[in-house]
This record gives sequence, C-alpha cells and structure tokens, in this order.
Amino acid sequence: MDELIKEIRIFAHERDWEQFHSPKNLSMALVVEASEILEIFQWLSEEESRILDPKTLARVKEEIGDVQIYIARLADQLGISPLEAAYEKLEKNQKKYPINKAKGSAKKYTDF
Amino acid sequence: MDELIKEIRIFAHERDWEQFHSPKNLSMALVVEASEILEIFQWLSEEESRILDPKTLARVKEEIGDVQIYIARLADQLGISPLEAAYEKLEKNQKKYPINKAKGSAKKYTDF
Amino acid sequence: MDELIKEIRIFAHERDWEQFHSPKNLSMALVVEASEILEIFQWLSEEESRILDPKTLARVKEEIGDVQIYIARLADQLGISPLEAAYEKLEKNQKKYPINKAKGSAKKYTDF
Amino acid sequence: MDELIKEIRIFAHERDWEQFHSPKNLSMALVVEASEILEIFQWLSEEESRILDPKTLARVKEEIGDVQIYIARLADQLGISPLEAAYEKLEKNQKKYPINKAKGSAKKYTDF
Repeated sequence: MDELIKEIRIFAHERDWEQFHSPKNLSMALVVEASEILEIFQWLSEEESRILDPKTLARVKEEIGDVQIYIARLADQLGISPLEAAYEKLEKNQKKYPINKAKGSAKKYTDF
Repeated sequence: MDELIKEIRIFAHERDWEQFHSPKNLSMALVVEASEILEIFQWLSEEESRILDPKTLARVKEEIGDVQIYIARLADQLGISPLEAAYEKLEKNQKKYPINKAKGSAKKYTDF
Repeated sequence: MDELIKEIRIFAHERDWEQFHSPKNLSMALVVEASEILEIFQWLSEEESRILDPKTLARVKEEIGDVQIYIARLADQLGISPLEAAYEKLEKNQKKYPINKAKGSAKKYTDF
Repeated sequence: MDELIKEIRIFAHERDWEQFHSPKNLSMALVVEASEILEIFQWLSEEESRILDPKTLARVKEEIGDVQIYIARLADQLGISPLEAAYEKLEKNQKKYPINKAKGSAKKYTDF
C-alpha cells in the first residue's frame, strides 16, 4: 500500500494535479468511481452479482482499482494510513456488533 | 492488505454475514460509506477541506476505514486483489493521461 | 414544482445560504441524500424493499423529500426546469430503448 | 409531476421493466445518475460550477432529467408523492434550522 501511495503521488505530481486534489474534490472522485461499480450491479440480482462473466468481472476490477486509488490518495492528502484506519474501524465494529447479538442479523447496531 | 482481508473474512463469518455480502449489496455499502466522506466535505471550500480540525479529521479517518474495509471485502468476494487492480489501473491511466497532454489540466482523456 | 422551487429559494435566502449553494456543492448534497436512501436498502432483499414497514417507509419518504429538494434547487441554480429535463430525457430513452428490443431486458442500450 | 409519473409507468410497463424496478434497484439507479452530475463537477471550482458553458449545461440537464425520473419512479413504487415529501421535509428543516441560528452558517443542526 505504501508503494501504491508513493506511485500515485508521483503520477499526480508529474501532471501537476495536486491543485485539483483537494480532499473535497477527491471525495467526489471517490464516490463517482464507487458509483460506477454500483452501475454494473444495479439491475443484477444478488445471485447474478456473485457469478459474473469474465467481461463484467474485468470491468468491476478496473473500477475497484479506481476506488482503491482514490481512497489511498484521499487518505494520503490528509496524512491518514488507509490500512490503519481500516484496522481501527474493524476493531470498533467488533465492539459495536458483538457476535451474540449480530449473528445472522443485518440490523444496525443502534437497533439492537 | 492480505491480513486485513483475512480479518474481515473472519469478522463476517463469525457473524454469519456472508449471506448479506453479495457483491451487489457490498457495492451499495461501499457507496454509502464513500458518501459519508462526501457529507463531511459538502459545504466546506476546497481550502477548508485541506486543513481539517482534529475532530473532523478523526471522523474522516473513520469513514476512510469503512471505505477501505468495503472495497477490500468486495474485491475479496470476487477473487480480485484491490492492490493489483489499483496498479493495473494506474498503468492504464499513465497511457490515457500522457504527461505532455495532461499537465495542469483536469480534462477527461476523451476531451484531449 | 414551481411553487416548491420558490419556497426553497426563500428558505435559502432567509438563511443567507446562497453562498453555499454552488452547483458543485449541491451536487454533493444531492448524492449524500440519495445515498441515505441507498443505506436503507443496502441489506434488504429486493422483495423486502417492495414491502416496507411503516417506520422504514416514513424514513424513505423523508429522504425522498431531501432528494427532491436538492434536485429542484440544483436545477434552479442552473436555470433548468427539472420536469422539462425529465420529459426530454424520457423521450430520448423512448428512442434509445425501443420496445421490441428492450422488452424484458435490463441491458444497456449500448449492448443491443 | 403526476403526469410525469404516469408516463414513466407506461414507459416501464411497455418494456416489462417492473420486474427490475424494485425500490432497492431504483435506489441504486438514483445514486448512479446523481453521481453522473457529481462527475461533471468533480474537478471544477465552485465558481466554475456556477457558470457552465452550453455544452456542459446540456449534459447536466440530461442528468438532472435522469435523477428526476428515478426519484419520481422510486417514490411511485412506494406510494409516495415526491412533492408532498419535499414540502414536509422543507417544513421540518424550517424548524431544525431557525433563521436566527442558521443564518450564514453551514453547520449541521446537531452542532448548534
């Protein structure tokens, strides 16, 4: 991940794109790319979304790449490590969703 | 990242949440979390978004954690490596946005 | 709709919010509110999403209100009539998706 | 608006698309279309977003049309009037954001 973040920095710097990469703008780009994944799945059933044909899978992979790039870039611009942030959140979720209460349920923790 | 993906697998399995984690549903969760970052920035100027107070920064970090978790989980459910996907996309972008054409410009490659 | 747009104008003016209501910011607010609808449906099956309990339905209604407010406001800030835009798009779609090709299919028109 | 909703009903019925138009799927389509507006504005400054060239304005109008269509359709599938929902929300907001507290401030009501 550190390597990826460095490469994105170089990529953006070479193109003089730091000026566009405010956290505000990057948050927009992130949602735009995440929504392109949504677009692929919008009319598929859940079952269909689990077994994609190779062409669709390649499209999803490309969009996942975009999302991973933008979340890494946004985090970097704010001095945040995306993996550290993920681990911290996962720990929080383990407390918010204790196994005995959350098992088999899609309820939000505020509804327990 | 591999470690994170494994921990998310265990987290989901312990709660019997695989049933909810279809790629379709995960793409929705991904956008929901990405939009929570958007919410934080919606009324800030670009300048303000670059210098967040500690409380807001902590909120953003938490949401970045959520996005990183869901993009990793979605990729995993489809047998995709998010870092590999990011590298491949970055390479593509290097060709789509050659430095001499893209420098200092926010134009889409289709508009060159 | 015209009446609604006027009321939103007054609402924003009284609060001196025109300064925040740039089309860029409003497009963010629009997605934020649309994603709050997404959040309600993310773990529901399609079937469950068709028969909501009264409490959930009330939440969705409120979010639909938010989306309708922001799309009307965004359109107004750009001198666009949202209903005219919708009619024009519906007409376009009638050509892009002719009944004989589109019937019973969720394919995108570019895939016909 | 009632007329628009009826036309969308006919449009969807003629194509046998009711099967795809679950509220879950429509909430996804709504966000996809709203994000296409976001895409147009992502690298523009707020100032630039207020004065669009005719070509960009035409693109935004088309996407506004899409959003208006999907919010109307989603509301209709749930037996909700989008305008009534908007009016009710506007009234709520008038209470949540009293003029004396909200004037010139972009703070969330929970932060007053």
